Amino acid sequence: MTSLLSTLNRCLRSTARLCNVSQPKVVYKSHFIAGGRWSTRWSSRFTHTTEAARGSPASGKYRKGVLIATGVFGTVAAGVCHLQQAEMATRVKKMEEEEEGNVAERCRSFMSPPVTDVRVLERRKQEMSSRMEMLIMETQAEFCRALQEVDGGTFKVDRWSREEGGGGVSCVLQDSKMFEKAGVNVSVVSGHLSEEAAKQMRSRGKQLKAKDGKLPFIAMGVSSVIHPKNPHIPTVHFNYRYFEVEEADGSKQWWFGGGTDLTPVYIDEADAVHFHSVLRDACNKHNPQYYPDFKKWCDRYFFIRHRGETRGIGGIFFDDLDSPNQEEAFSFVKSCAKTVVPCYLPIVRKHLDDKFTQQEKDWQQIRRGRYVEFNLVYDRGVKFGLATPGSRVESIIMSLPLTARWEYMHEPTRGTKEADMLEVLRNPKEWV
Amino acid sequence: MTSLLSTLNRCLRSTARLCNVSQPKVVYKSHFIAGGRWSTRWSSRFTHTTEAARGSPASGKYRKGVLIATGVFGTVAAGVCHLQQAEMATRVKKMEEEEEGNVAERCRSFMSPPVTDVRVLERRKQEMSSRMEMLIMETQAEFCRALQEVDGGTFKVDRWSREEGGGGVSCVLQDSKMFEKAGVNVSVVSGHLSEEAAKQMRSRGKQLKAKDGKLPFIAMGVSSVIHPKNPHIPTVHFNYRYFEVEEADGSKQWWFGGGTDLTPVYIDEADAVHFHSVLRDACNKHNPQYYPDFKKWCDRYFFIRHRGETRGIGGIFFDDLDSPNQEEAFSFVKSCAKTVVPCYLPIVRKHLDDKFTQQEKDWQQIRRGRYVEFNLVYDRGVKFGLATPGSRVESIIMSLPLTARWEYMHEPTRGTKEADMLEVLRNPKEWV
Repeated sequence: MTSLLSTLNRCLRSTARLCNVSQPKVVYKSHFIAGGRWSTRWSSRFTHTTEAARGSPASGKYRKGVLIATGVFGTVAAGVCHLQQAEMATRVKKMEEEEEGNVAERCRSFMSPPVTDVRVLERRKQEMSSRMEMLIMETQAEFCRALQEVDGGTFKVDRWSREEGGGGVSCVLQDSKMFEKAGVNVSVVSGHLSEEAAKQMRSRGKQLKAKDGKLPFIAMGVSSVIHPKNPHIPTVHFNYRYFEVEEADGSKQWWFGGGTDLTPVYIDEADAVHFHSVLRDACNKHNPQYYPDFKKWCDRYFFIRHRGETRGIGGIFFDDLDSPNQEEAFSFVKSCAKTVVPCYLPIVRKHLDDKFTQQEKDWQQIRRGRYVEFNLVYDRGVKFGLATPGSRVESIIMSLPLTARWEYMHEPTRGTKEADMLEVLRNPKEWV
Repeated sequence: MTSLLSTLNRCLRSTARLCNVSQPKVVYKSHFIAGGRWSTRWSSRFTHTTEAARGSPASGKYRKGVLIATGVFGTVAAGVCHLQQAEMATRVKKMEEEEEGNVAERCRSFMSPPVTDVRVLERRKQEMSSRMEMLIMETQAEFCRALQEVDGGTFKVDRWSREEGGGGVSCVLQDSKMFEKAGVNVSVVSGHLSEEAAKQMRSRGKQLKAKDGKLPFIAMGVSSVIHPKNPHIPTVHFNYRYFEVEEADGSKQWWFGGGTDLTPVYIDEADAVHFHSVLRDACNKHNPQYYPDFKKWCDRYFFIRHRGETRGIGGIFFDDLDSPNQEEAFSFVKSCAKTVVPCYLPIVRKHLDDKFTQQEKDWQQIRRGRYVEFNLVYDRGVKFGLATPGSRVESIIMSLPLTARWEYMHEPTRGTKEADMLEVLRNPKEWV
């Protein structure tokens, strides 16, 4: 079961091909990482696809393709580029097959080689951990590419490994034309659960039977925070993750988590409605209760308690998802991952050339300060990451903005746009 | 027992008088506080002393007085303004008497009326809680005044109360000539310990016997963080506090805590030696073990674990101090409180006119980011404050800089001044 949205996304990629619009290609940049961690160079068999992201004519055409694509996601499925429904269905099927097909081929579109060896992923391609790793690498590449298209810059790609097992790929675009900081991070981490971590899991109702006190686990996810320069373009955050623990009898406990949420500096009702609609539609393909439940969960989670405000205007958030079955849960997560571009890119493009004043920039900086407060004081991922020995701190701290501001006793004047924004943060709304 | 340093400080005030140098006077500003908390206007009997801080000739003379004073604290006691030792002793005695004397008179030098009613303080002037409140109000006034003298600006004074009991006085100078943000905060809070707080105290070895499940407490302190604009002037932080809990049988458990520490952006050996010498000298008057123990404690406490660096170059830090007896412990805290001006002001004055580049400013902003990380992730005071219902968030968050910066994978080039600074933060030094 693949959701309509992910189908659409893939469909549009093939649509682009049909319309003779080139696929975007990746610039395989390698960087040495401070602190002696290893960095890899993408093998030469992949080096033939380096021109597009540098602004070749092909990338210009694709840009148009993306524009169409992102516009469509928020609205209806039919009529794209004059493709008929029947044709779409055929192509969808073809893409489905492709997805289940050659792993090495699919890896070529990634920002770097995946964390797990390609041959291992190929061999274990039916296993959920392999399928999820492919999905998060793909999501990273799709999102980075969409941002590169709009910005004109190139992501710095750091592939890093972790002594205790696993590693990750961090893509960062910093102080570029459009973005203060854009980070898209993949990590695939394995090892044995610490007693502390196992305790935390138990406190969340997970009954884990260890073998000789050991609980092998694998955790992976894609996460991203984008802080644009223009205060009229909101910050976006998403994170989709999978967790698997092996118990004494060899059976596995697993669950998914994730969400996408928006943090505007100024409220734009149409943006909020678009963003929430895309998420709602993705949820509704799987379970009509998902959107209302996960929207509430999001507002509750991204709450800066000491300020009495939410971090932004929410979206969806869920954790410990292990129902109705693994296939369905994965399919839902895939639908969500496929919405990150159509949720966000139309908003970016809409406000690309919006003018702004110094006062608006200052208010953005104050909101950035609140973002820092949430991430360092409350965010479970950040807290867990910073407290875990061997974590890659730069990939955790990447979510913080390039700059932030704290003014003593700042309170917007009643009736201003700044006060309107605060009002929404203090009283979360139903947008759709 | 009054320490030589606090004696000196008072002595120098009287010296200023002898030399016909006017005492600085306070501008009693009142501000309405957002959220409906009450704000008070200093009663008219105190309104006669408003001119000095606005830059009258008197304040200019005092500025000179402070210059002499601060220079002396770090070196020797004798020879100040040609005063003879004998004369000093007489005056010290006089000041001692003054200190124990008219409470209302002493309150006139404060930035605002104390939190506790002046008549109550007068009536209970022998009690430790009253003596400590007088000390923290005095420390706030002395420090604010010294900073105003050097900056030319005027602190915004907010007097606030807390529904659950007590209140505070927050003094902030923001985006002034010299300071990005300078905050000096007093709070005096009373009520009943929450079960959570009592549990925390027990985990720290405090055996508290509650009466009907209730533990009345009073907590008070002065705390300050100063973030200068010039990257060659370090950030300073200090905090001196007193805690008292009443047990079932009416007896009281009490303890003091506090410390002063410096966070330079660039290392200046002479500054570091001066700062630590003043603290060591203050400690040595009470116990030769205090400085080495509390210096280590400071390095340990202000450690940003996930970065593997200390926040700054330390100073002293102590907690749960309840020995050798209440009088001695108070006397030690008083000595420490009296060092905040002589520790810091000579450093400020030395670098007042230092030129700096944009690169130096950027490095300062990155260090500010680390300051935010420490305060929001590790600082017990901030964490406790933000988690306590009814806390005044603005007074807690006041410690954050006006602006901060997070660059992905920033690492100074080897051999630069920035790398030298990091080296010291990664391997704390013995300065004296």
